Amino acid sequence: MSKPIEARELKHGDRARQAKPLKHSIRVHWGDCDPAKIAYTANIPAWALKAIEAWWEHNAGFDWYRISLDRKIGTPFVHMKMDFRSPVTPRHILECEVVLKRLGHRSLTLTVMGYQNGVLCFEGEFVQVFVEIDRMKPRTLPSDILASISANAFETE
Amino acid sequence: MSKPIEARELKHGDRARQAKPLKHSIRVHWGDCDPAKIAYTANIPAWALKAIEAWWEHNAGFDWYRISLDRKIGTPFVHMKMDFRSPVTPRHILECEVVLKRLGHRSLTLTVMGYQNGVLCFEGEFVQVFVEIDRMKPRTLPSDILASISANAFETE
Amino acid sequence: MSKPIEARELKHGDRARQAKPLKHSIRVHWGDCDPAKIAYTANIPAWALKAIEAWWEHNAGFDWYRISLDRKIGTPFVHMKMDFRSPVTPRHILECEVVLKRLGHRSLTLTVMGYQNGVLCFEGEFVQVFVEIDRMKPRTLPSDILASISANAFETE
Amino acid sequence: MSKPIEARELKHGDRARQAKPLKHSIRVHWGDCDPAKIAYTANIPAWALKAIEAWWEHNAGFDWYRISLDRKIGTPFVHMKMDFRSPVTPRHILECEVVLKRLGHRSLTLTVMGYQNGVLCFEGEFVQVFVEIDRMKPRTLPSDILASISANAFETE
Repeated sequence: MSKPIEARELKHGDRARQAKPLKHSIRVHWGDCDPAKIAYTANIPAWALKAIEAWWEHNAGFDWYRISLDRKIGTPFVHMKMDFRSPVTPRHILECEVVLKRLGHRSLTLTVMGYQNGVLCFEGEFVQVFVEIDRMKPRTLPSDILASISANAFETE
Repeated sequence: MSKPIEARELKHGDRARQAKPLKHSIRVHWGDCDPAKIAYTANIPAWALKAIEAWWEHNAGFDWYRISLDRKIGTPFVHMKMDFRSPVTPRHILECEVVLKRLGHRSLTLTVMGYQNGVLCFEGEFVQVFVEIDRMKPRTLPSDILASISANAFETE
Repeated sequence: MSKPIEARELKHGDRARQAKPLKHSIRVHWGDCDPAKIAYTANIPAWALKAIEAWWEHNAGFDWYRISLDRKIGTPFVHMKMDFRSPVTPRHILECEVVLKRLGHRSLTLTVMGYQNGVLCFEGEFVQVFVEIDRMKPRTLPSDILASISANAFETE
Repeated sequence: MSKPIEARELKHGDRARQAKPLKHSIRVHWGDCDPAKIAYTANIPAWALKAIEAWWEHNAGFDWYRISLDRKIGTPFVHMKMDFRSPVTPRHILECEVVLKRLGHRSLTLTVMGYQNGVLCFEGEFVQVFVEIDRMKPRTLPSDILASISANAFETE
């Protein structure tokens, strides 16, 4: 890894080290639906965040609870945008795909796409920054966590 | 009202009929906060939606339950984007301001800004479309609801 | 099945047809925890209900969405009681065990126990009644659903 | 306050110092309802807890966020039981009444009743214990908080 991963923008054509999607399945429940018989809108960003937390656990080696309590690192969101393409219902599993779009020194951009039965239901983009948990001051990720992301979040050739 | 309100884009300098903010107060609870001692991110779009529902009730005369069950009109979201500026905590009331940005024939764009103790905590933009509730087919709003929005959602001179 | 299952109370010593626990695993997330670093209380009955819905899907052949929309049967709760024994955190999977305690003509009693890492975190008892979904009038379960419960919800000898 | 309030059980006929209900209004939203067009069951204990938190703020002078962060006192729930009497919908405000049933040295029992349009929708009983927030060890309430409860949570003659 000659170029520092921290400052690297991942482009679609960047086949040498293309980001690897993390697949995360979510069971949609009766109580997630509103009287229109589809998942209530506010549940959808909440599910995207759960998929993103699974990305962290799988790739960085820490879910948000452990990275916060055990490593004193916070990863607050500063931005989200979502497009809702098709209703989500309990009739199918919600399959989320989380992809690293950009890994900066002090922030990270992830995209989340949610599918049911092969249909794209929503897609979104989320930006997190890295902070010291107690003072909310910006910081970089420690090298072991960067190394873990580098080892896990990309396709192998 | 010579120009049809349905197709009208509201611009910032449009003083003749400037959109009137709907203020909606939300009590932040202990259970809304995560171990970082601030409101968990996923609660914030949920609060913005509650403020938007209050905008509908105040300006259109129908909350989403009544417009859906009594008028068979659905108003699903197709897009949201949010910037998180400052943490939300239970120490202050969360004051939301909802402003109509664009009222189209088959959709509506609203902005929501959330403040605590005078500090902007988040801002977002949300797009809803109008559909027949049962078939999810696009439709326009009926004239009585448009008239109610026209009468209530704008500053009087 | 010589005795009608509908009216049968399942006792602990009833080895001939002992109820079979349905195990349901739940991933506890950062956002489920409050500033005390443990799952917020209100999430716990919500998880118990998700485990109960999994019991329905596995044993009756219908989750609540399908039994409601496809069979027009509602199963509203009329009672719950819970004891909270030990905090729930994201450090371990939450393993729920749902057991049929009583299957009556027009109601059902289930117990739910939640464990993390072998420790009992909570236990509860929940009573649901069976109704026609539109009019909320009491009804019995249809014979195919009773047969499915009878075939699936009990230990085989 | 001649008798110690900490160890006192409040009985219904105890007119000399009858507990005063705390009324707390909750707006029920579209997203709180499930496809049966009524509030999803799991929202109801969540609302009861919000009403109880309002009771703490009003009577003890601290909501759970402040009592935890500023006073290092935790008030975890050890028991809840609820009866669901009538569906909750967005058509009416949910009016909750929280009443102190028993104030012990190391625990507190509160009842919550929820009404819509004069109809009892649910009633419940909740037990909280008092702990040191960091070690989760049982403790008593400090005298200023007991004095505040004594001054505020009872009817004046």
